[in-house]
Amino acid sequence: MSDLLPGPVEVVGAGLVGTSIALACQRAGIDVLLSDTSAEHLRTASGLGAGRPKAPGDVAALVVVAVPPDHLGEAIAAALDTAGEDTVVTDVGSVKAAPLEAVAGHPAASRYVGSHPMAGSERSGPLAASADLFTGRPWAICRHDGASATAVRRVAALVEVCGAVPVMLTPAEHDKAVARTSHVPHLLASLVAGTLTGAAPEHLALTGQGVRDVTRVAAGDPTLYSQIIGGNSKAVAGLLREVRDRLDLALAAVADGDRAGLESLLAHGLAGTRAIPGKHGGPVQAVSAVHVAVPDHPGELARLFADVGASGVNIEDVRIDHDPGRPVGLVELDVAEGRAEHLLAALESKGWVTHR
Amino acid sequence: MSDLLPGPVEVVGAGLVGTSIALACQRAGIDVLLSDTSAEHLRTASGLGAGRPKAPGDVAALVVVAVPPDHLGEAIAAALDTAGEDTVVTDVGSVKAAPLEAVAGHPAASRYVGSHPMAGSERSGPLAASADLFTGRPWAICRHDGASATAVRRVAALVEVCGAVPVMLTPAEHDKAVARTSHVPHLLASLVAGTLTGAAPEHLALTGQGVRDVTRVAAGDPTLYSQIIGGNSKAVAGLLREVRDRLDLALAAVADGDRAGLESLLAHGLAGTRAIPGKHGGPVQAVSAVHVAVPDHPGELARLFADVGASGVNIEDVRIDHDPGRPVGLVELDVAEGRAEHLLAALESKGWVTHR
Repeated sequence: MSDLLPGPVEVVGAGLVGTSIALACQRAGIDVLLSDTSAEHLRTASGLGAGRPKAPGDVAALVVVAVPPDHLGEAIAAALDTAGEDTVVTDVGSVKAAPLEAVAGHPAASRYVGSHPMAGSERSGPLAASADLFTGRPWAICRHDGASATAVRRVAALVEVCGAVPVMLTPAEHDKAVARTSHVPHLLASLVAGTLTGAAPEHLALTGQGVRDVTRVAAGDPTLYSQIIGGNSKAVAGLLREVRDRLDLALAAVADGDRAGLESLLAHGLAGTRAIPGKHGGPVQAVSAVHVAVPDHPGELARLFADVGASGVNIEDVRIDHDPGRPVGLVELDVAEGRAEHLLAALESKGWVTHR
Repeated sequence: MSDLLPGPVEVVGAGLVGTSIALACQRAGIDVLLSDTSAEHLRTASGLGAGRPKAPGDVAALVVVAVPPDHLGEAIAAALDTAGEDTVVTDVGSVKAAPLEAVAGHPAASRYVGSHPMAGSERSGPLAASADLFTGRPWAICRHDGASATAVRRVAALVEVCGAVPVMLTPAEHDKAVARTSHVPHLLASLVAGTLTGAAPEHLALTGQGVRDVTRVAAGDPTLYSQIIGGNSKAVAGLLREVRDRLDLALAAVADGDRAGLESLLAHGLAGTRAIPGKHGGPVQAVSAVHVAVPDHPGELARLFADVGASGVNIEDVRIDHDPGRPVGLVELDVAEGRAEHLLAALESKGWVTHR
């Protein structure tokens, strides 16, 4: 591993993602240099053991640019300008075509390979960092036509050091992929959430788990997401036009009482949910839900999961639905189809109030 | 309770919701009469102890119509036609203006009060029924102008017997409320999910938790939801036009590079997420997420929640994010802000790999 990724690694931008990468490298025994425009971030990240501030004369084998989306292009170009002639540069921004354009004419562009780890947190800053942030997460590696094989190998080695799963995509493919799997869903979730502002409280009293799920991502920072989504304008606008056309079809079907048309649109959506990769990248597994009423105080979830564990049934997913009027939560346990009856019987024998 | 809700209660339609209501009534000592066009459903529900098949000459104090959306109007009218002169009729359909229109001219319309329990399951049929299906759930009671006070009281008594939380709304208000909190979110989730059909597998490899959350409800039965959404066409179409107009604004902002406009739309969505009622109907509580890597086999979740329980920190929500390439799941625990550090320290002391 250290053959493919010799030190030191320089991390530009000691926020959540940059500091987490630095911690993963240090854990693997790779020397890390840190730089940040914020002296406080630099001090905090160094204090966490993520590396030492970069000094004049330091030359990195790999520079990882982890700055906000709007500053990626200039920061990547600056890294190519100032680094050694064998230094490879990558970035971890969530769009890939725009930063590449910013460095496409650079004489050292062959030493740049963009990348994008699919991990984050609603928290930010170095204090939220962890060497395990990327464990098992997809991490896109986006080589452009002029990238050198050495550069690609070195970035792949970083992904391996971080415990992530490499996904090879061209920059343009990557941007189309995240428009579909992240940016357009985020925008639509935000539009749905927007309809809830100003609604009467007695109307919102009917809010169930469904709309909470749909709108959860819309709680993200508007400034950050306007940079992310705005930085991928071409792919997002193209897909958003398709969604707008289908929304017009849905509106016409609803307004005209065209049940068959409405059902066909909903069936198209159902097919889409089945296209999402399942556990461990395999096909989606058919699951059944088991609902359990759980008193809302510490220890009850532990008791529940002890009883679930004793039943031998593996849990695929869990949700907690706090109901609005009572000191009880409804826990939804998703289990493989065919295992629900066994789990229900096991939990009921322990006194839990359940239903499917 | 039995003064306000004398027996027998007749349940028309022994599916999931009807049979669950019947079981709740029987548990409260109220005699239940069952009817269903399916002899098999009737036999199953009776066998579960939900009541006895209605016989000629039986007269109910309350008829609960629990048939599919497209048959509600005729079934309510039939119940008013054939029931006793003191019999109150309600239904549990998910739209309320359309069935009311169907019986508005009926001479006994004063004995009808529509209602809507906010509970269900992806399962259907009497075998999935439970007397606890409605515990703690909102249940809208939708009196129309001509409804008698006796009728309203009797339906409210049913809601209480079922352990649900009554929410008083006019039929028109109810339909606007569910368009906003359920039908339009469902449609938009379905449109987002539809964009995933036919996407390249290597693009879908970047799928994260966000798009899974956004599209989860779109896995619902298209036939049922086309009836539900199509039956609320006026309220849905009105709100859907508002969403379409905002989508056009979003599209223009993205295509024109108008970052401020995009950020403003996203900020509007963020405000909407904060309008959703929190735990127990109170204000939304600020939570922090703690992520824990959990080996993917039975018993590990039990061990985790035992350690969580021992820490004394209450869990507000749980999600499991199965990552695509590894035999490990990431469990996200949401806890009150200010409790995350304590939980992290407690879990790390037990050997768990965590990050915020």
